[in-house]
Amino acid sequence: MPDTPPITEAEMLSRLRLARSRRVGATTFHRLLAEHGSAAAALAALPAIARAAGAEGYEPCPEGVARAELAAGRRAGARLLPFGAPGYPPALADLDDAPPLLWALGDPALAARPMVALVGARNASSLGLRMAQRLARELGAAGFTVVSGLARGIDAAAHEAALATGTIGVQAGGIDVVYPAENATLSARMAREGLRLAELPPGTQPQARHFPQRNRIIAGLARATVVIEAAARSGSLLTARNALDYGREVMAVPGHPMDARAAGCNLLIRDGAVLVRNAEDVIEALGGSAPVASGPAPLPVAAPVQSPLPGPETGAAEARILAALGPSPTPEDLLLRSLGLAPAVLARSLVLLEIEGRVIRHPGGLLSLG
Amino acid sequence: MPDTPPITEAEMLSRLRLARSRRVGATTFHRLLAEHGSAAAALAALPAIARAAGAEGYEPCPEGVARAELAAGRRAGARLLPFGAPGYPPALADLDDAPPLLWALGDPALAARPMVALVGARNASSLGLRMAQRLARELGAAGFTVVSGLARGIDAAAHEAALATGTIGVQAGGIDVVYPAENATLSARMAREGLRLAELPPGTQPQARHFPQRNRIIAGLARATVVIEAAARSGSLLTARNALDYGREVMAVPGHPMDARAAGCNLLIRDGAVLVRNAEDVIEALGGSAPVASGPAPLPVAAPVQSPLPGPETGAAEARILAALGPSPTPEDLLLRSLGLAPAVLARSLVLLEIEGRVIRHPGGLLSLG
Repeated sequence: MPDTPPITEAEMLSRLRLARSRRVGATTFHRLLAEHGSAAAALAALPAIARAAGAEGYEPCPEGVARAELAAGRRAGARLLPFGAPGYPPALADLDDAPPLLWALGDPALAARPMVALVGARNASSLGLRMAQRLARELGAAGFTVVSGLARGIDAAAHEAALATGTIGVQAGGIDVVYPAENATLSARMAREGLRLAELPPGTQPQARHFPQRNRIIAGLARATVVIEAAARSGSLLTARNALDYGREVMAVPGHPMDARAAGCNLLIRDGAVLVRNAEDVIEALGGSAPVASGPAPLPVAAPVQSPLPGPETGAAEARILAALGPSPTPEDLLLRSLGLAPAVLARSLVLLEIEGRVIRHPGGLLSLG
Repeated sequence: MPDTPPITEAEMLSRLRLARSRRVGATTFHRLLAEHGSAAAALAALPAIARAAGAEGYEPCPEGVARAELAAGRRAGARLLPFGAPGYPPALADLDDAPPLLWALGDPALAARPMVALVGARNASSLGLRMAQRLARELGAAGFTVVSGLARGIDAAAHEAALATGTIGVQAGGIDVVYPAENATLSARMAREGLRLAELPPGTQPQARHFPQRNRIIAGLARATVVIEAAARSGSLLTARNALDYGREVMAVPGHPMDARAAGCNLLIRDGAVLVRNAEDVIEALGGSAPVASGPAPLPVAAPVQSPLPGPETGAAEARILAALGPSPTPEDLLLRSLGLAPAVLARSLVLLEIEGRVIRHPGGLLSLG
């Protein structure tokens, strides 16, 4: 990315502090950065923004905490990839909720190649595991980096089979936290021969609420997400949903309707996902030719947004947003249309409400009451 | 069918003779009947038509042969259903190649209800057999007559499970020929509690070339053909093809890509067939509501066609048709467009060429060199 000015050590630290500040999600991070020009400026403005929103005593993430995280990452042998810097995965660059920073262990060049995500059940059948291995091997041979979540079952089978050609494991917890324990050997090999990525700070133990965040990164990295075996309500379907939201291809391996592990896949196919029998089906659906290693995609230039400092009518906009939202997540674009607010007004109000903790952002542009 | 004049015994015999005459396929039968107003008149014209086409010594089916067939059918306890007569399945009435006659054993009223065909592999898996039984039972309970081919495997399982609600078995050989032998008990029950239909004369042993003809009847009877388990190149896929040609729904039960018995079904789904997990999926794709027993559909009135006696330019048209056709079947409508002949001229020439044995008609409006 020759056109991007290098990120100084000080700015890197500020970005880390901004990203780790309470109520600052990925989308808010990018908005604040665009509005204030630098993470340092955004950090300086954050207490006033919070105060204006009625959140007294708001403190951004202290510098010491960020320094400690940097030290922990270095101890783990990992490298911090800030959004927009060299090594940051180009495929994530155009996502509204791209991770502000990623900890990386291994070869970041693997993320510059075209990627396919192979995801599926932890309690996979032997047929499912064989399918994961075969697809991983064949897609790897065709030039794709295979992305998955380093979980048991389908994930582990796909990573193992793609170690020789290139594979990326996206972790729900910290880069130095091996989970599950049975994947310790695989995890170690992934760091040496592949690439491991983690959005959360080193030391973070993965919890249920972290998995949707991690799944969005898998979906965002890959041109296509292929679901290999998945029950009706499973995390793999949420990853597929992320992929759809990001405009990526969703594909699924069918199974017999009497096999519960096929229910999610068959549902996706009924809903329009590409039916996958083999790697050729995936390659054909992606345009028919083996991938060519692409250079990094150009970074999007964030549009300038008005200052989030509250103007006279902000209170009214916030009240309308709160009235329109409920506990179950609603797409932001739907909210925009139904309220008829100017996008800049909505954006500003949402930043305030999010910092205040009254609105929660979910992956895929969804909002709910906090 | 109150508006259809009753068919006399003599006309019935003539229809049987016309249908059994060499080179007179189902489509030609309907054309000759429409052109000549009655089977007797068409029979009388047949030798001249053949002579004009250069086939010397052509003889229509002798009356004695037809009488012997009628006697054999009666001995079997079967009833002859001529096209357009009461009891003839309304669903077949609008097909170009509707069977001129059908031998029936059992209750023809079952063919006046909405039908779903369940077809699939003879060497089905236990999962496939269970799926056939479940779909047959649930579709039967929803008011559909279940149609199949009385073969081993999927067919037999579907018939068995639908005996209580109504099922039709279409036979490739004669109505009195039980094939395969292991289905003897099922066949006997089908005659008593369901309906068996056969297009070919009693006593005919089913041969490989008879199955495509039989499959078109299955596809033609049913609103939807559901393929339950089928290898990549199998008769069930041809039945599905017939259903598409007839404008009926094609549906398939998915299976794991590593199971060869799922290959045909997965192929159909990739090509746009409805993915079927259960009876609700079938019913939903057919319009979402359980069927209402429908009265017989109105019979189509065949358009008057010019006399097939050769005019001065017929020879040229025939030569062009023969030049355009090859050994592999071509759709008639494609031939019509590519030759730019008037439909009546093409129809007349094809009757001649077919009687002459130089052109063969295949199910689904396909033509090839004889």
